[in-house]
Amino acid sequence: MYMHTHKVQYYETDKMQITHHSNYIRFMEEARIGFLAACGYKYEDFEKDGVVSPVVSVSCNFKKSTTFPDIINIKVYVKSVTPVRFVLGYIMYVNDNIVCTASSGHCFMKKEGHIISIKKEYPEFFEVLTGEIEE
Amino acid sequence: MYMHTHKVQYYETDKMQITHHSNYIRFMEEARIGFLAACGYKYEDFEKDGVVSPVVSVSCNFKKSTTFPDIINIKVYVKSVTPVRFVLGYIMYVNDNIVCTASSGHCFMKKEGHIISIKKEYPEFFEVLTGEIEE
Amino acid sequence: MYMHTHKVQYYETDKMQITHHSNYIRFMEEARIGFLAACGYKYEDFEKDGVVSPVVSVSCNFKKSTTFPDIINIKVYVKSVTPVRFVLGYIMYVNDNIVCTASSGHCFMKKEGHIISIKKEYPEFFEVLTGEIEE
Amino acid sequence: MYMHTHKVQYYETDKMQITHHSNYIRFMEEARIGFLAACGYKYEDFEKDGVVSPVVSVSCNFKKSTTFPDIINIKVYVKSVTPVRFVLGYIMYVNDNIVCTASSGHCFMKKEGHIISIKKEYPEFFEVLTGEIEE
Repeated sequence: MYMHTHKVQYYETDKMQITHHSNYIRFMEEARIGFLAACGYKYEDFEKDGVVSPVVSVSCNFKKSTTFPDIINIKVYVKSVTPVRFVLGYIMYVNDNIVCTASSGHCFMKKEGHIISIKKEYPEFFEVLTGEIEE
Repeated sequence: MYMHTHKVQYYETDKMQITHHSNYIRFMEEARIGFLAACGYKYEDFEKDGVVSPVVSVSCNFKKSTTFPDIINIKVYVKSVTPVRFVLGYIMYVNDNIVCTASSGHCFMKKEGHIISIKKEYPEFFEVLTGEIEE
Repeated sequence: MYMHTHKVQYYETDKMQITHHSNYIRFMEEARIGFLAACGYKYEDFEKDGVVSPVVSVSCNFKKSTTFPDIINIKVYVKSVTPVRFVLGYIMYVNDNIVCTASSGHCFMKKEGHIISIKKEYPEFFEVLTGEIEE
Repeated sequence: MYMHTHKVQYYETDKMQITHHSNYIRFMEEARIGFLAACGYKYEDFEKDGVVSPVVSVSCNFKKSTTFPDIINIKVYVKSVTPVRFVLGYIMYVNDNIVCTASSGHCFMKKEGHIISIKKEYPEFFEVLTGEIEE
């Protein structure tokens, strides 16, 4: 189980004196890159291969507000995988309280713009993702 | 029908040379504030009343990438309303292409932290929202 | 005289309930791109040429705080020009009050990374900048 | 000597495929808050006292570009102190290369808006800052 830690920064707060909701989308990116690296796949290595991984969807449910200087712990897991797409899930905690649950969908694309089959082009990565699926 | 316009800024792009996906959540906020003002309700007036409107959920589907200096036109509409919550929908266009569809859920809270009934505290605003519902 | 307008967004504020100071650097970029376009030079056209214009220095003096939903008017002018570098000045107003004065230094580089002579490669642009110098 | 570490995030890069220059101002804030905490003064404690510390000036010289996933080490030191204002200096490194040098000026204010004397209101903090001055 992978857990990413993000310390809320002052510049991430807003006039309501809480973490601006758009920043959770950024925390998800940080956590996702950490999760993939923990699985043995560095995002920068895909880019060196000429492959990028655009976000095709995001969804967040905000349960409790957070603010500077809270420490958010983010559990990342795999929700589903198909040959061309995978969906990650995120559960964010401050202490033992869930503050946000979220998910993001991703595909893999050649820089020129066509979607590639993860199963075909990165079969080992596909296996790893499949092995990490949680309900 | 309310349409908000956002010009993608250079600082909103990322290493993939497209608009970073987290920024669409910010464009939604801009568009939402414009939509509410067009309905006759300025966000800053709610705040003067000691009322804030935290985002309780967001969801985005990214259809096509955008980048600097694209002009994004954002249609805002009401998806659903209950006495304590409303959900707005967003359709974002560059020229005639849909680049993103999204929604966001909101409640109204007293600054001290308890959720209020929009229907009871702001009955006229509740009527306006209800009148703007689209399928 | 070029004047750029930026409406402070809610997501640009912080816990102190004012515009976060880092955002003024972004407003300067917006204003600079608008100023160059008003001079007849679109930033995206330089990029199509394989030329980028990294920021080599920035400096800001914050005179008064601003917040959502203030309208900031930003006057942009040329402070100095040499064959390889130019410095722009910015004066930001809310109503008639100066809220920030700033400057930024820029060079032009080929994407491969070497600095080019603006005077030699873009002599007309160099002339325009020189003609816009203000004390 | 205090050293803060920031890992450049993907969302901090731009279309030029480097860290957007505005983000260094945010790294300075992170580093500054860490430095003050290392000196025994947590920023959140000042806020609990009803005291905020607005940034009155910033200045950055960008020496080399950085990008995701660079690790930036930021040395923070005190440049000057007066009873009502202090200036911090920052030297940012990637490996042994200086990528940015910067400074920021700060005052202390009561939330109601008047500047206070740091020397009078926080004499021990004033002593600590004075003791940290470096040429």
